[in-house]
Amino acid sequence: MTKKLTKSPGTIPCTFFDFPLVTNLHSLDADIAILGIPYGMPYEPSAMANDQSRAPDAIRQATSLSDIKYAKTHFDWDIGGSLLNGRDIKIVDCGNVTADMTDHKAHYRRAEQVTRKIFGTNTILITLGGDHGISIPVMRALEVYETPITLVHVDAHLDWRHEVNGETEGYSSPIRRASQMPWIDKIVQIGMRGIGSARTGEVQDALAYGSDIISAYDMHDVGMDAVLDRIPGNGPYYLTIDADGIDPAIMPAVIAQTPGGLTWVQIRKLIHGLVKKGRVLGMDLVEIAPKYDIGNISMIHAERLICNFIGSSVRAGYYG
Amino acid sequence: MTKKLTKSPGTIPCTFFDFPLVTNLHSLDADIAILGIPYGMPYEPSAMANDQSRAPDAIRQATSLSDIKYAKTHFDWDIGGSLLNGRDIKIVDCGNVTADMTDHKAHYRRAEQVTRKIFGTNTILITLGGDHGISIPVMRALEVYETPITLVHVDAHLDWRHEVNGETEGYSSPIRRASQMPWIDKIVQIGMRGIGSARTGEVQDALAYGSDIISAYDMHDVGMDAVLDRIPGNGPYYLTIDADGIDPAIMPAVIAQTPGGLTWVQIRKLIHGLVKKGRVLGMDLVEIAPKYDIGNISMIHAERLICNFIGSSVRAGYYG
Amino acid sequence: MTKKLTKSPGTIPCTFFDFPLVTNLHSLDADIAILGIPYGMPYEPSAMANDQSRAPDAIRQATSLSDIKYAKTHFDWDIGGSLLNGRDIKIVDCGNVTADMTDHKAHYRRAEQVTRKIFGTNTILITLGGDHGISIPVMRALEVYETPITLVHVDAHLDWRHEVNGETEGYSSPIRRASQMPWIDKIVQIGMRGIGSARTGEVQDALAYGSDIISAYDMHDVGMDAVLDRIPGNGPYYLTIDADGIDPAIMPAVIAQTPGGLTWVQIRKLIHGLVKKGRVLGMDLVEIAPKYDIGNISMIHAERLICNFIGSSVRAGYYG
Amino acid sequence: MTKKLTKSPGTIPCTFFDFPLVTNLHSLDADIAILGIPYGMPYEPSAMANDQSRAPDAIRQATSLSDIKYAKTHFDWDIGGSLLNGRDIKIVDCGNVTADMTDHKAHYRRAEQVTRKIFGTNTILITLGGDHGISIPVMRALEVYETPITLVHVDAHLDWRHEVNGETEGYSSPIRRASQMPWIDKIVQIGMRGIGSARTGEVQDALAYGSDIISAYDMHDVGMDAVLDRIPGNGPYYLTIDADGIDPAIMPAVIAQTPGGLTWVQIRKLIHGLVKKGRVLGMDLVEIAPKYDIGNISMIHAERLICNFIGSSVRAGYYG
Amino acid sequence: MTKKLTKSPGTIPCTFFDFPLVTNLHSLDADIAILGIPYGMPYEPSAMANDQSRAPDAIRQATSLSDIKYAKTHFDWDIGGSLLNGRDIKIVDCGNVTADMTDHKAHYRRAEQVTRKIFGTNTILITLGGDHGISIPVMRALEVYETPITLVHVDAHLDWRHEVNGETEGYSSPIRRASQMPWIDKIVQIGMRGIGSARTGEVQDALAYGSDIISAYDMHDVGMDAVLDRIPGNGPYYLTIDADGIDPAIMPAVIAQTPGGLTWVQIRKLIHGLVKKGRVLGMDLVEIAPKYDIGNISMIHAERLICNFIGSSVRAGYYG
Amino acid sequence: MTKKLTKSPGTIPCTFFDFPLVTNLHSLDADIAILGIPYGMPYEPSAMANDQSRAPDAIRQATSLSDIKYAKTHFDWDIGGSLLNGRDIKIVDCGNVTADMTDHKAHYRRAEQVTRKIFGTNTILITLGGDHGISIPVMRALEVYETPITLVHVDAHLDWRHEVNGETEGYSSPIRRASQMPWIDKIVQIGMRGIGSARTGEVQDALAYGSDIISAYDMHDVGMDAVLDRIPGNGPYYLTIDADGIDPAIMPAVIAQTPGGLTWVQIRKLIHGLVKKGRVLGMDLVEIAPKYDIGNISMIHAERLICNFIGSSVRAGYYG
Repeated sequence: MTKKLTKSPGTIPCTFFDFPLVTNLHSLDADIAILGIPYGMPYEPSAMANDQSRAPDAIRQATSLSDIKYAKTHFDWDIGGSLLNGRDIKIVDCGNVTADMTDHKAHYRRAEQVTRKIFGTNTILITLGGDHGISIPVMRALEVYETPITLVHVDAHLDWRHEVNGETEGYSSPIRRASQMPWIDKIVQIGMRGIGSARTGEVQDALAYGSDIISAYDMHDVGMDAVLDRIPGNGPYYLTIDADGIDPAIMPAVIAQTPGGLTWVQIRKLIHGLVKKGRVLGMDLVEIAPKYDIGNISMIHAERLICNFIGSSVRAGYYG
Repeated sequence: MTKKLTKSPGTIPCTFFDFPLVTNLHSLDADIAILGIPYGMPYEPSAMANDQSRAPDAIRQATSLSDIKYAKTHFDWDIGGSLLNGRDIKIVDCGNVTADMTDHKAHYRRAEQVTRKIFGTNTILITLGGDHGISIPVMRALEVYETPITLVHVDAHLDWRHEVNGETEGYSSPIRRASQMPWIDKIVQIGMRGIGSARTGEVQDALAYGSDIISAYDMHDVGMDAVLDRIPGNGPYYLTIDADGIDPAIMPAVIAQTPGGLTWVQIRKLIHGLVKKGRVLGMDLVEIAPKYDIGNISMIHAERLICNFIGSSVRAGYYG
Repeated sequence: MTKKLTKSPGTIPCTFFDFPLVTNLHSLDADIAILGIPYGMPYEPSAMANDQSRAPDAIRQATSLSDIKYAKTHFDWDIGGSLLNGRDIKIVDCGNVTADMTDHKAHYRRAEQVTRKIFGTNTILITLGGDHGISIPVMRALEVYETPITLVHVDAHLDWRHEVNGETEGYSSPIRRASQMPWIDKIVQIGMRGIGSARTGEVQDALAYGSDIISAYDMHDVGMDAVLDRIPGNGPYYLTIDADGIDPAIMPAVIAQTPGGLTWVQIRKLIHGLVKKGRVLGMDLVEIAPKYDIGNISMIHAERLICNFIGSSVRAGYYG
Repeated sequence: MTKKLTKSPGTIPCTFFDFPLVTNLHSLDADIAILGIPYGMPYEPSAMANDQSRAPDAIRQATSLSDIKYAKTHFDWDIGGSLLNGRDIKIVDCGNVTADMTDHKAHYRRAEQVTRKIFGTNTILITLGGDHGISIPVMRALEVYETPITLVHVDAHLDWRHEVNGETEGYSSPIRRASQMPWIDKIVQIGMRGIGSARTGEVQDALAYGSDIISAYDMHDVGMDAVLDRIPGNGPYYLTIDADGIDPAIMPAVIAQTPGGLTWVQIRKLIHGLVKKGRVLGMDLVEIAPKYDIGNISMIHAERLICNFIGSSVRAGYYG
Repeated sequence: MTKKLTKSPGTIPCTFFDFPLVTNLHSLDADIAILGIPYGMPYEPSAMANDQSRAPDAIRQATSLSDIKYAKTHFDWDIGGSLLNGRDIKIVDCGNVTADMTDHKAHYRRAEQVTRKIFGTNTILITLGGDHGISIPVMRALEVYETPITLVHVDAHLDWRHEVNGETEGYSSPIRRASQMPWIDKIVQIGMRGIGSARTGEVQDALAYGSDIISAYDMHDVGMDAVLDRIPGNGPYYLTIDADGIDPAIMPAVIAQTPGGLTWVQIRKLIHGLVKKGRVLGMDLVEIAPKYDIGNISMIHAERLICNFIGSSVRAGYYG
Repeated sequence: MTKKLTKSPGTIPCTFFDFPLVTNLHSLDADIAILGIPYGMPYEPSAMANDQSRAPDAIRQATSLSDIKYAKTHFDWDIGGSLLNGRDIKIVDCGNVTADMTDHKAHYRRAEQVTRKIFGTNTILITLGGDHGISIPVMRALEVYETPITLVHVDAHLDWRHEVNGETEGYSSPIRRASQMPWIDKIVQIGMRGIGSARTGEVQDALAYGSDIISAYDMHDVGMDAVLDRIPGNGPYYLTIDADGIDPAIMPAVIAQTPGGLTWVQIRKLIHGLVKKGRVLGMDLVEIAPKYDIGNISMIHAERLICNFIGSSVRAGYYG
């Protein structure tokens, strides 16, 4: 039993697990960077600031629910030891990318600049969305690695729309955009189910590209070990997780709840397995809409998901 | 990612997925009919209008949460294509059967008349309850098919009571009543668990009749594929689903939440498998009590359940 | 379908399933005793009365949601017949152990005295916590059996702390304390996951003792049947269940919700299997924090868990 | 500061302030009787059991929130001393009038029989509705006093409809029905505001009868002292209070919340003033719909309203 | 007692009180027009679509809670007869002004164009915000009347900021902007209290202009009749009501709840009195944030406020 | 219109209005000190940490809802200018008095020590409770002023119990304890209503002492100006406010909601009037139970109440 802290003056953490806030990236010196990108590219006025914009700070706040010292120093059965395994690994929180009301492209440009700097120092990046549009500038920045990268995509939806309302970089298009980036090689899409952004044409385009589409029901039938075997090569990888890929019984805080999603045991196995297969250069967790959370269950799963990524990357020897 | 629409004046759908409202059944010409039956037969004054009476309209409203155009025209991974697979299949919503305060038997008589007309034109019927009493007039109307029908029953409870408080056609009695209809042949009951309407005598009666009772725990142990194999013959079938047969983690909106129910993956497999085995003449979804929903999770599963039934029936060649 | 009762004056049950209240234990004559222990040993002032203190009465109230007559007289598919199988088995509710504000050790002393009396008449004890500290006086009282007892522990956390803030008998220490009782022999700990009370040192101490630690992920991989096989011998057993061992999708009413816990099908199988392996002298269900419940789902699972324990003990021939 | 009790087994009160439950009225010997009448006469099936049907028991439960001993023995500043002023005054709770599903008129007949017995022994009656239809049988029973009675009516609405959907004894008609009872003499209607049951014709009928209609705005302008002066004579009176006459900021638990209602200071002054003017033979409090309460504010005002009526009647020398 | 309707398919009203929707204003022929303006001019990205943007449709929906027929045909005690007093007065709902994501000034231009057309046919305009910025284009359109207009402003805040974040037409600036319009003459500001947009400089500017600032506490001391006397002349007037001017006990659905606001009796008296003093060319009700409503109390007061304006304007002879 | 800030990393305030945190009082140099005293003296174990213990931090957090810069620099109509009127007045937040689990008297001793230091430097003290017991050590510390002090007490209850469960310094006894302190002279008790801690004996004791008891109804009848005239002399005063003295429509966050309390306009007038009559050495605001708040209305009134005290003390020339 760990306990829920009552906060006294002075102790409320404002960054992810109270890791230091670093906003000047010119001399970034870190192993892992956390970055919030609250704003995607809207399809209409009322979507400029959606509920997902609140997610980066909401996830940070959720990390104040468990004892911070516990998370860093106590034994974590999910990962078989303390978070960083007693090693001197540097994690920083880079805050949120700011937006400009008079220039909607500005925050994508800034997001890309920031992530290029982070990737440029070979720092592992964990991005907190925002909607799924925000993966686009992050994946653009992957160019700096000058190597073919396999994209692993967890989602209930295909996200291969060319455009919606004339906007080509919104939350329905990240995988189509990725497919057009020369440094993105193989694409594996896991958890597809229900209806969504895709029409028959988009499905055909994805298949024509060579995307390996694994529906939720295929996954439930064959199991996550078999899915891991289907993911090609030994990296490097980029992992993008739309929260609605996860089952709504444990991740209700999404706009498009869809029955039949990944269970916790499955997504945890995917993270551990992928990190072990090869280097995962970065991951994002997008489309969490905090106002739809029930109790705190979505936030707790989000926090654990990120800690499992960090902890398993430590065990996989990512940091020397 | 699909999105939750903000409704503007004039766009709120009032029928299931905005399918046309047809209340004059004399010249019914449809492949599938949706019908609401809000009122069962009460055991006491306070049960005349129960929360389940609100379910037909609540389920219709839930279908306005996803983009209607999406549901009809977009790719649905649950069923491998768009809802109607691009075919010209006619679905109508027949509204709700009205009740008469001064004659409690009136709405059952009307429900039976209406369903006889629907079955009389070989139209597939999807009934939205109401409590489980409302299956009784629907199953009576199955007489028009003049053929033995196998009844498949999903529920946490047996529903074999002869009467409660003198009432023989209430929500505790639908399967006992079905067993007395000459056109009902085999009965398979799936998901039994916890306590409920049945005493030892009712269990013995059901077994004496030859009902194949598959408890939830048997089902979890052997899997839904094996359960499908146990369902006899190749139809025709009638499928009655009490929402409390489904697990309360994803279907909390019921009066008698019971641990250990069918998961989404299991009920979806049952629907697809049964529709493929033989013609399912109709199905009902009963006992949803909207006020107990958590967020919108019950409604989302209800909507998907019905769409999976429609979509798989299209693929099974029901409509020529 | 069972129904939710509307209570009229005079019918609100105040004991577990309306079993008789027995507070004078001098001439206790019962097969099974229910006992509430609301208060653990606090680590700080604000923890003296925690939300878990409300759980014993909240669980009792939850047993008023289903028809009491149903629970005792109707067929329960979980256990294959009515609760007591028609037998004359005596169950009593002993109320709650009271606390003394000026002497914090008093309620532990009283709890131990009471449970010694209960165990002294070979009565099966079902204890409702309270936080996990309350298992300590109960396990102390197991001394009266003068036989080595295997402890089966379901939890997300290890609970092997020696002390917290100088307190050695709080909710982080029950299994460490048990390991020091001569009458506790083997220890099996099921469901460990996430972070918690344990640091590396505590894990090493548990392993050095010989505790068989089965993480949640091991359990999900091998299944509960294999876990049951790993539990040694044929009893006697004591079973302590921290509610956070169970998955938060069905047991949200805990302080430390942790992803990946036991499903209902797994915990039910554990209870039935353990009771069948050998005599379970008593069980406790602790750490339920009623205010975090969602709808009523935690309480419904708590009630079913206890009924499954009672019902399977009847079938296992515990009562002659 | 009084305190909110945590209930232990055995102490939950089931009657109003734990006054004795008396259901056999043949030898009624009491000064004040409390009676619940949950069911009015419905206009349509879904209104048979409305939320107001839950009010009698909800109000009784609310009286368990303050310490019962306090209410009877402690100083009450509202009424200037303890509730009964230390006198031996007998208050009984007669429970709820039962309804009959097959004969809608039955509960009105029973309500009238019961209240005739209560009035027949000159017992002061406090009736808890139910909707406003339930005042009709109570006012019919006033016939036993064989004297002209002034009716004082607090409401946002006029309630002079002759019928709705053919039903002449529903919640829109109590004052019209009262005007046709020979023993009802003057009628004063206080708090009218907003729209409601009345059309122009009903207003004209009320005025033609001689009803003194005092709108909420007239009352706010002249004050409650002036309103009291306008109430004719020195009794006897019957007082019927529709909860929606009171302002929704303090009485939100009504179906038809209407701005501008009576404040607490005003309604308290009305009760004290009327009781002092002459004998109030009985009062009813109707149309409370518990599910619309915010926190517990409606219930707290309901409880205080009734205690002020009891306490001021004691001071006015009603009981010898 | 009026009743809350259960909506059946086909009856959900989508315009204010189901008045006809008129979106082509070229041949507008109406006495009163309702117009929604959801979007103000944002100070930052996250404020583009604020919760107030949902208010126009939320208020329209609230008018479906009471029986529509009642509101038009039944006696309304607030205004002494039916809404339109049986006269043939035409009210239309013009829907919402649309916004353009790529040109933030567009919706203000459209709002001004639309309101110029409405004022150009001497139609009384009732505008539903949106935040308080939306009064700016409406007051600009008042130019068409070519006459000095007295502005009556109800608010907790002064709203005289020149700019915020460079934006001069946001919700902090409407009265400063009005003071610069040649056709706005006298300004009376009622209900000022608490802190807000104004610094000392803004207060001095307002006083220098000649604004008659009546703080909430002055108003509570002297009463609304005296405030009405202080409002100069006999019109014409424009009335702008920021919902936070009203007391948060009855209007919680605002961003900046401030103690001590106008009571319902006061604001109703202001509306009736002002309409009687002279012609009120239009009114707006802004800054309602539906998500902060408690129960439905804000919406009920909003609906009543508008009906009182309509009803009193009918009695004041506005429509011939 | 002010706005609700979305907090970004680094900006969450942890002290009252972000005033500096000063925990070393040896060299205290301030004009006004804020102090939290979370723990009273419990009557039973479950009351050690009551919900009121959370109030000091909850009130501090509430001050983060309005823009901090606004509160300090913007015009506040409640007090006629900015909070400190542009003067260099020093306000500090001294955090919370800590409790000791093994010595219940310890926090009272510490509270008294701290407040003696604060009063010893002639600093105005604003104490945030905790329950009403916490006024006792604060009033003890008033001894350092060596002058007779008039106690002004706002409450629904008399608080003259000698003891409860043997405890003489709990929340039912602060005014009795004050009456026994030689430095407390006159006592005025405002807002008494409903039932509560007092029995007839306590009322007699208070009157015998000479306490001027002004019931809520007397106050509503005569007005707050007359009440101010009844408060004797020209100070110094101590002001203790039990939140349940205020009306539950605007202060629902209390344990013992009681109809008919002080309105905001009344309590604000009392504060301004009393501060003007003479020096108020300190005030406390106690018995706020955050979990019962509705929306945020109690917290908003609490924040305004304290700001009105600070602002009016600045205008009254308290700080040179």
